[in-house]
Amino acid sequence: MDRFMKLQQKEVSVPAIFEAIIAKKTTALSQGITLVESTQKKHYKKAQQLIEKCLPYSNKAIRIGITGVPGVGKSTCIEALGNLLIQQGKKVAVLAVDPSSTISGGSILGDKTRMELLVRSPEAFIRPSPSGKSLGGVARKTRESIILCEAAGYDIIIIETVGVGQSETVVHSMVDFFLLLKLAGAGDELQGIKRGIIEMADAIVINKADGDNIKAALEAKSQFKKALHLYPIAESNWSPEVHTCSALTNEGIDDIWKIIQTYLDTTKKNGFFERNRIRQNEFWLVQTIEEQLKHSFYNHPKIKETLPSQLEAIQQQKITPFTAAAYLLEISKLS
Amino acid sequence: MDRFMKLQQKEVSVPAIFEAIIAKKTTALSQGITLVESTQKKHYKKAQQLIEKCLPYSNKAIRIGITGVPGVGKSTCIEALGNLLIQQGKKVAVLAVDPSSTISGGSILGDKTRMELLVRSPEAFIRPSPSGKSLGGVARKTRESIILCEAAGYDIIIIETVGVGQSETVVHSMVDFFLLLKLAGAGDELQGIKRGIIEMADAIVINKADGDNIKAALEAKSQFKKALHLYPIAESNWSPEVHTCSALTNEGIDDIWKIIQTYLDTTKKNGFFERNRIRQNEFWLVQTIEEQLKHSFYNHPKIKETLPSQLEAIQQQKITPFTAAAYLLEISKLS
Repeated sequence: MDRFMKLQQKEVSVPAIFEAIIAKKTTALSQGITLVESTQKKHYKKAQQLIEKCLPYSNKAIRIGITGVPGVGKSTCIEALGNLLIQQGKKVAVLAVDPSSTISGGSILGDKTRMELLVRSPEAFIRPSPSGKSLGGVARKTRESIILCEAAGYDIIIIETVGVGQSETVVHSMVDFFLLLKLAGAGDELQGIKRGIIEMADAIVINKADGDNIKAALEAKSQFKKALHLYPIAESNWSPEVHTCSALTNEGIDDIWKIIQTYLDTTKKNGFFERNRIRQNEFWLVQTIEEQLKHSFYNHPKIKETLPSQLEAIQQQKITPFTAAAYLLEISKLS
Repeated sequence: MDRFMKLQQKEVSVPAIFEAIIAKKTTALSQGITLVESTQKKHYKKAQQLIEKCLPYSNKAIRIGITGVPGVGKSTCIEALGNLLIQQGKKVAVLAVDPSSTISGGSILGDKTRMELLVRSPEAFIRPSPSGKSLGGVARKTRESIILCEAAGYDIIIIETVGVGQSETVVHSMVDFFLLLKLAGAGDELQGIKRGIIEMADAIVINKADGDNIKAALEAKSQFKKALHLYPIAESNWSPEVHTCSALTNEGIDDIWKIIQTYLDTTKKNGFFERNRIRQNEFWLVQTIEEQLKHSFYNHPKIKETLPSQLEAIQQQKITPFTAAAYLLEISKLS
């Protein structure tokens, strides 16, 4: 029986789930996230109530985004980093934003065998990507789930996303620190990274720097260092670090955590950390509004009917895109 | 007397201006662009009529975007390139997108002394940036003026923009080839380029590679070449070229033109050129629609009144950005 059906059978009590979440009950957290992820209308209002109750208890964790192409070793890396943090007495939640999960059946965080220790640890909470048709929707659910995880007392929230499409941008907008995982050699430097991702990274870590790979990894590290020098200094005043690691041998994993700590020190002192969170909230407000405005427009029956012929007229150089836009906006006002 | 007032005094005859434009009369072209740039309602409709008449005569020129920080030598470079093209029998129009021009009184293309020869050549047409409050508005006017210039028989349209803010992105969306001008040394590699601009460039040209600067320019060239290697291959299948030039000594200017020609050959053969233009048209349609949707929303009296308190509630962690968005969308429907 799927989890939404389970949710439907029982009467969902928001105050009860809330109390259990702040009492750090993992089952309640899972249930709460299921409520947030539900697409049923009657769950929507309850989910919003739950989130609002949790809000004052949130905002205290550190949010870390991790991205990289499939095969780069995100899961093993999260396993290694997560266990290190747990050894230090922290509670770690791992969420994912994977817009392709609906089609592929959950490509990331699906293979939990790569997070063996983390899965079994009572200090870790692992949740695969919510499914959904639009990246905006998937991202929104994850953004809301962060609030629940924080209220449940998790100190570190790791958000994993796959290095394709627009998903990095939305994850970047919900984390404090953004880590790009790379592989050395095999021409990987040249392929597979979406333009702009390097520019969002607070650290680039070349994974699988073990065995015969070490030389190539160090070479890649030096290349990335040089390349990053060409970028202007970020508003955070933080110069992205480049490191190598091996999630297999655990080499360099503690360095990643040290980098993150230095980053937090720097940005908390210079005020960027706080400013960035405020701006992220504004981003989500504006983003949600504008997504909805566009959705309403493009799903207007008259627009659906007229848009193709307008596009054709533009390509045939009969009208400009501006005239077509004015016309479409006009007819969208007729109901 | 300013040009809009002149326009107002005479009766504007669209068919007459149109005939004169396709008869390659520069005065008519100027007048037509003034009509396009006018913010007066009665000019708007005439401008659209004129543009539509010109549309079938457009789309044949090559559109080149040139960007770079102030002081990099955009004007001298355009002077050198423009004169080279005229020597080869081409007609060259130079337009600008400068969203700051309203405030600064026209920072680019203003100093025509740097384009001495071009200004005097009958084969060149130079027009400073339209003024306007929004970049979208300024860009739109320039995008429409391109159509008029093309109908007037100009073979090459150069669009200059200053390397700050979002203006490169909009210029990139109206040109076939995008050139980034850089300076060597003085730490310029590290400063002043907005993130993402390097990734849009089809060529990076290090200007002022003359005298004592040559060594630094060659060093910068090699650095950029290495950096560009880290980027994935663009959809155009074109690997951005890095060159040095001196607009002062004319060294390397012909190389720029050769690069552009090779680019055109490559992208016309592989279909990207045509595909890109189609996509640019779609971009302008979507862009215009969405800008207007947002404008209407944020200027709704109820939204103007309510937005600040909602933002405050978000920052005080009373509500999520998503709840605030839903509330604002709801009240925007009340008129």
